[in-house]
Amino acid sequence: MTTIAVYPGTFDPITYGHLDVIHRAREIFDKVIVLVASNTSKSPMFGAEERLDMVKAAVKKYRNVSAENFEGLLVDFARKKKATVIVRGLRAVSDFEYEFQMALTNRKLAGEITTVFLVPHEKFTYLNSSLIREVSRLGGNVSQFVPPHVMRVLRKKLHG
Amino acid sequence: MTTIAVYPGTFDPITYGHLDVIHRAREIFDKVIVLVASNTSKSPMFGAEERLDMVKAAVKKYRNVSAENFEGLLVDFARKKKATVIVRGLRAVSDFEYEFQMALTNRKLAGEITTVFLVPHEKFTYLNSSLIREVSRLGGNVSQFVPPHVMRVLRKKLHG
Amino acid sequence: MTTIAVYPGTFDPITYGHLDVIHRAREIFDKVIVLVASNTSKSPMFGAEERLDMVKAAVKKYRNVSAENFEGLLVDFARKKKATVIVRGLRAVSDFEYEFQMALTNRKLAGEITTVFLVPHEKFTYLNSSLIREVSRLGGNVSQFVPPHVMRVLRKKLHG
Amino acid sequence: MTTIAVYPGTFDPITYGHLDVIHRAREIFDKVIVLVASNTSKSPMFGAEERLDMVKAAVKKYRNVSAENFEGLLVDFARKKKATVIVRGLRAVSDFEYEFQMALTNRKLAGEITTVFLVPHEKFTYLNSSLIREVSRLGGNVSQFVPPHVMRVLRKKLHG
Amino acid sequence: MTTIAVYPGTFDPITYGHLDVIHRAREIFDKVIVLVASNTSKSPMFGAEERLDMVKAAVKKYRNVSAENFEGLLVDFARKKKATVIVRGLRAVSDFEYEFQMALTNRKLAGEITTVFLVPHEKFTYLNSSLIREVSRLGGNVSQFVPPHVMRVLRKKLHG
Amino acid sequence: MTTIAVYPGTFDPITYGHLDVIHRAREIFDKVIVLVASNTSKSPMFGAEERLDMVKAAVKKYRNVSAENFEGLLVDFARKKKATVIVRGLRAVSDFEYEFQMALTNRKLAGEITTVFLVPHEKFTYLNSSLIREVSRLGGNVSQFVPPHVMRVLRKKLHG
Repeated sequence: MTTIAVYPGTFDPITYGHLDVIHRAREIFDKVIVLVASNTSKSPMFGAEERLDMVKAAVKKYRNVSAENFEGLLVDFARKKKATVIVRGLRAVSDFEYEFQMALTNRKLAGEITTVFLVPHEKFTYLNSSLIREVSRLGGNVSQFVPPHVMRVLRKKLHG
Repeated sequence: MTTIAVYPGTFDPITYGHLDVIHRAREIFDKVIVLVASNTSKSPMFGAEERLDMVKAAVKKYRNVSAENFEGLLVDFARKKKATVIVRGLRAVSDFEYEFQMALTNRKLAGEITTVFLVPHEKFTYLNSSLIREVSRLGGNVSQFVPPHVMRVLRKKLHG
Repeated sequence: MTTIAVYPGTFDPITYGHLDVIHRAREIFDKVIVLVASNTSKSPMFGAEERLDMVKAAVKKYRNVSAENFEGLLVDFARKKKATVIVRGLRAVSDFEYEFQMALTNRKLAGEITTVFLVPHEKFTYLNSSLIREVSRLGGNVSQFVPPHVMRVLRKKLHG
Repeated sequence: MTTIAVYPGTFDPITYGHLDVIHRAREIFDKVIVLVASNTSKSPMFGAEERLDMVKAAVKKYRNVSAENFEGLLVDFARKKKATVIVRGLRAVSDFEYEFQMALTNRKLAGEITTVFLVPHEKFTYLNSSLIREVSRLGGNVSQFVPPHVMRVLRKKLHG
Repeated sequence: MTTIAVYPGTFDPITYGHLDVIHRAREIFDKVIVLVASNTSKSPMFGAEERLDMVKAAVKKYRNVSAENFEGLLVDFARKKKATVIVRGLRAVSDFEYEFQMALTNRKLAGEITTVFLVPHEKFTYLNSSLIREVSRLGGNVSQFVPPHVMRVLRKKLHG
Repeated sequence: MTTIAVYPGTFDPITYGHLDVIHRAREIFDKVIVLVASNTSKSPMFGAEERLDMVKAAVKKYRNVSAENFEGLLVDFARKKKATVIVRGLRAVSDFEYEFQMALTNRKLAGEITTVFLVPHEKFTYLNSSLIREVSRLGGNVSQFVPPHVMRVLRKKLHG
């Protein structure tokens, strides 16, 4: 059995929490495709290309992980890639219901695709991209939360 | 890559909700071992052997699913079976924190094993074994919730 | 339209929070039957008759409220009484999922009966019977939480 | 006793989940008025008139259900209509606290009005209007989630 | 030991719930500094100066409470003031995870500062500033929720 | 101002998570009294004296921390000790409502005492005594979770 998984997200920017999920997923599925959402209602700090570049740089060391931009319906993308798994990280109860809803909706739209939730290491449970952007903006040090190349891009974006 | 998953539980008794999780897991992992906990603090209605028999009858149609009793530490069992995945169903927010805690603890005890959560079909989200036992005991009909062979065993246990 | 509602519970003992729910229910439904569960897995402090007596004393001033013991399946009782509504108080998130599950299960068992949740006054949101029993047992004053006749019964039970 | 209930919401657009709540409410209350909020902080996809029209078309088969636009304070509207019940659907824990807060606030503002929560059928628990708008926008099929006349309006709005 | 606490927030506007937290904090810590966030992503109804003025008027009766505007990183402010405690009110489960996340992040950024949560009186658990703004805007009476001087400012802002 | 805090619990046994809370509390309050509940409905693995001894050994290095057994009402104990603060650790949403309820009840019983919640380090958020007992019982290694002297007592209790 060859199982392909997609890991969709905004990755604005990618954090050590995301990388922990990717690292885990690549050990249990044959192939992992990180999908960087192009159009998102969240008005991201970074453009789709910038976010994809940061993801690519972060996963290039993994043989069975690739990254792509996408727009449109997630299940359509997954089908095109012959993926049968959608991977999501689950950090907190407040994530749970939205994720649950998305998983049930995607199951309605594409019954052959299974959503799978992974729990990141506890040192990343409090971590999310919006917090990192906020702390960065206020001048705080985020080196514990994101890889060095992301820190450089973040600093450049914020302070020119 | 060959990925072996264990799906631990009390299965007191196995329900259509559990079977939905098993059905999903067997499509994305090469092999699924259903682990029926022998010793449990929950004082089950059915003995370990009875629970295992009901599970075995329910999964015998699946080529890549097997079932076993176990006692002791889950991660020890998983290691012995060369499993790298623990599968759990996640139905409700109230499940979440206990499951989260177990996933993080198992990760501490065995860093190479990944816990993966699946969401059962929404028609099973309200369903659990204790509810089925309670409704049965009070004379309600549980044929929508468990397979026919489980209903027979349940009826026999309760009404002799 | 004549709408009859049942309000099931253990009432071990009845509190001002329960009475707030009853008071509300009786203003919007034609008849409210308070159902005191006889057999319960909770090993109550008070016997079924004692609990029913305390409820009866508390609601006797309401013309359209009555109280009864019951055992068996709630929906069977409701049908016998021609009730189409089950009333439950909802105080906290932790109540929610159990209640939700019961509401969906009862809907499966009896599609014509609707479960309706009421929120007690915020001064009762923290209140439950088990807390009252615990505080009483340790010698605390619970006169803010239960009617005087319940306080007398509680005191007698605990201190003879 | 004649009990009039109001069921307020944005209905952007009305879904099968809303209709399930309406169907239930009309069986236990004498009259149900669906209130379509005119001014809302949510920047709806559809104008107040469009939303009202979709609701009206969906409920016209029910003798004791009507629909109106409203702006201003909900409890003022309810009082004008002599309604003593506010009906709300409760699908998920994340709904709970906002709804709880609104129920307690409305009780402060109008002590004679009772908020009553109904739980939609489990096949609608994952469903909300924003998800439907999102799936539609991305080209997904939402015929399982909304009535045919709503689908037509949705398609026209999105694809001209 | 002299313990200084900071109580950060948007206070848009200050409510009786906030004042309950302040009142409690000032009884257990030597000094409490209320910090009114100048720049906030929440697009407040009142300007930073207006919000600070309302807070100052509300706390001027307390000898060991002061109020200041701040921008930048909270932990930097706390350090400058030699505060070792951050005080936050916790009213509801939905507050919990965001607050938890902030507490853990601030602990990462400044290990010597401890976040402390207080629970306001239950009569304020349903209360928040956004609800007050909404009810005011729609013409409702908020005198139960905010001090008289805040009501005057609110009325002037809304109705000129 | 001299502020005395009590930190009540079962401590069956004391963990690194508890010690993190104690360490924090002792830095912001003048004196911390750890209260080991003698009579508890939880049927503890260790007797009250054993639990107290383990706590005492763990806190003896802290000049301003002491430990005592207690039975009866917590607020009565606090008053006797002239404590104005009750400290509780808050790790998870599921803790929240019970803790909230206790805080509001204790406030009703003793208005001058304030409950204060601390969040332990994220590496302890998944940790609780019951998990440690369970893992120990099944032969797992709990050295990451409890101090060495507790491990010895645990081992002796379980394996003689």
